[in-house]
Amino acid sequence: MNLKEFAARIGLSQTTVSRAMSGYPEVKPETRARVLEAAEKLGYRPNISAQRLATGRAGAIGIVFQGGGRFGPHSSEFMGGLSTRLQKDGIDILVSTVETQDEEEAAYRRLAASKRVDAVIVHTTACTDTRIALLQAQGLPFIVHGRSEAQEPFAFLDIDNFGAIEAATRHLAGLGHRRIALINGDIAHTYARDRDAAYRATLAAHGLALDPALAGHGEFTDETGFRLMQAFLALPSPPTAVIAGSMMSALGAMRAIRIAGLAVGVDVSLIAHDDVFPYLSPDNLVPALTTTHSPIRAAGERIGDMVLRLLQGEAPETLQEIWPVDFIVRGSTGPAPA
Amino acid sequence: MNLKEFAARIGLSQTTVSRAMSGYPEVKPETRARVLEAAEKLGYRPNISAQRLATGRAGAIGIVFQGGGRFGPHSSEFMGGLSTRLQKDGIDILVSTVETQDEEEAAYRRLAASKRVDAVIVHTTACTDTRIALLQAQGLPFIVHGRSEAQEPFAFLDIDNFGAIEAATRHLAGLGHRRIALINGDIAHTYARDRDAAYRATLAAHGLALDPALAGHGEFTDETGFRLMQAFLALPSPPTAVIAGSMMSALGAMRAIRIAGLAVGVDVSLIAHDDVFPYLSPDNLVPALTTTHSPIRAAGERIGDMVLRLLQGEAPETLQEIWPVDFIVRGSTGPAPA
Repeated sequence: MNLKEFAARIGLSQTTVSRAMSGYPEVKPETRARVLEAAEKLGYRPNISAQRLATGRAGAIGIVFQGGGRFGPHSSEFMGGLSTRLQKDGIDILVSTVETQDEEEAAYRRLAASKRVDAVIVHTTACTDTRIALLQAQGLPFIVHGRSEAQEPFAFLDIDNFGAIEAATRHLAGLGHRRIALINGDIAHTYARDRDAAYRATLAAHGLALDPALAGHGEFTDETGFRLMQAFLALPSPPTAVIAGSMMSALGAMRAIRIAGLAVGVDVSLIAHDDVFPYLSPDNLVPALTTTHSPIRAAGERIGDMVLRLLQGEAPETLQEIWPVDFIVRGSTGPAPA
Repeated sequence: MNLKEFAARIGLSQTTVSRAMSGYPEVKPETRARVLEAAEKLGYRPNISAQRLATGRAGAIGIVFQGGGRFGPHSSEFMGGLSTRLQKDGIDILVSTVETQDEEEAAYRRLAASKRVDAVIVHTTACTDTRIALLQAQGLPFIVHGRSEAQEPFAFLDIDNFGAIEAATRHLAGLGHRRIALINGDIAHTYARDRDAAYRATLAAHGLALDPALAGHGEFTDETGFRLMQAFLALPSPPTAVIAGSMMSALGAMRAIRIAGLAVGVDVSLIAHDDVFPYLSPDNLVPALTTTHSPIRAAGERIGDMVLRLLQGEAPETLQEIWPVDFIVRGSTGPAPA
């Protein structure tokens, strides 16, 4: 049974049937339910190409990564959540990988022109991010994972990076630590700037001096965590506490602490930001890690939801969420050594 | 400068220029080099949509996952390698996520009909995999990551799963272990069947009896590794050695061994298959893990290469590779306890 026959059989136009069965419901929920029920009963399976032609939709959401090397634990958790949500509406994800910022912008222009995607997800945002104005100018709908400054309002989901690092720093200061280090990401990114701001503000609020040698930056990998921690421990006056920007950085930091013959949670307190990797639980480490906790998979799922709402016509300024971050105390933090 | 102007300027047809500049070189290397050099010099940047229309190519490779939950450490490493290679030729990856095997087959039909991808990657192959005949019937080019039985030859890349588990089992038998457990994947999959066959054959070759209670199956997660190891240790006669199918399973197994008050490498020897996760190095665990080693990221990169060669007209039967697996002895294996 083709679309024409099916539409005639249930007394609706081909366009209404296509729209009802497409991923983007633009018809009344009752009509949609009726069409889906009839399709099930009559064994009608839509030809997606024809349907997309009829609805003018590509049925795919785009995401661009700078460098195939960027595909790692964070991106797979995010993609897992995003695809879990989009799958329910039969929407695919088009992954473009590019080398540079220029190539990324060219990729958006290309995606907008070729109509191969209905919207894109922008991630790893800079404090001032040229991609936002570019996408607005191209008329390509988008959701930002993160935040940025922009003239026009846009849809975004971010976590409260400031609140997370504020809670972590306050906890350590309360335990008497006076030399607290931070393993942060590239400060050009909004999340890293927010974390840095929270770190500085909370140190100041507790009357603690800021030592630039204790603020480290780099990619959230085991290797960088190890290298930065070794550098901290080599200082004339090493830190007694460290906040690691990710579980990956924390693994490297723990190794460096152990190699130096020190005990985590006794000689050096450690807090990690946990994006929640199913295979790397802070409870399973020895000692269990104190964390700021916010699952990136859940964020991906929610962003899938938001992008569908955006395509259904919701205004970008009504699609803005900032998620609180839980602070969970475990065994890796203790009083500052005397 | 548009395609027409550029082609006229360098005295070639628009089709030749498009083909030369597309990801799929179908023109002589000298011509391609000449076109690219002229484009660079004259500042010509192709309109990808027009180019794709001219070449009849989608410029994307498809990959289907069953369940968004399947996006995990293995898939991100594979995708990282694949995208690193495809990026060099400006090829995107279209990710479809489906719930069931039926939906996966419908997705391939849809991809073949809509011409949104030029080829697909098939992974997690069953011993008899209906997807292969389906794709051959649809005329949609594909590369298999893994192996399967099929009537017609097809392109694939697999690792030597038999050789890997044979080496691991032989090593343990040589150390005097007589109760060796295996944490394997779902036996319906080719890799799991190959590993199971190697385990059985090598036990038999050393005159060791096969105990079905020591052959565990499940997903390669920390949790399943933990659960299976706890079950092994609860047996009246527990194993003195275990082969874990992945680093993730090994993490769970190590935890179960420790919780039982036993020492890894002393009371229970442990070998893991290592697909190479940058944040989870067997050298960093305590004790360092003995592994069978084969990077899944490199396999993704190679498959990207193979898919481009397939699209350039190479015959599937000339694109078949089985990679050997290294066996690396570290501290987690030792003589069987007396």
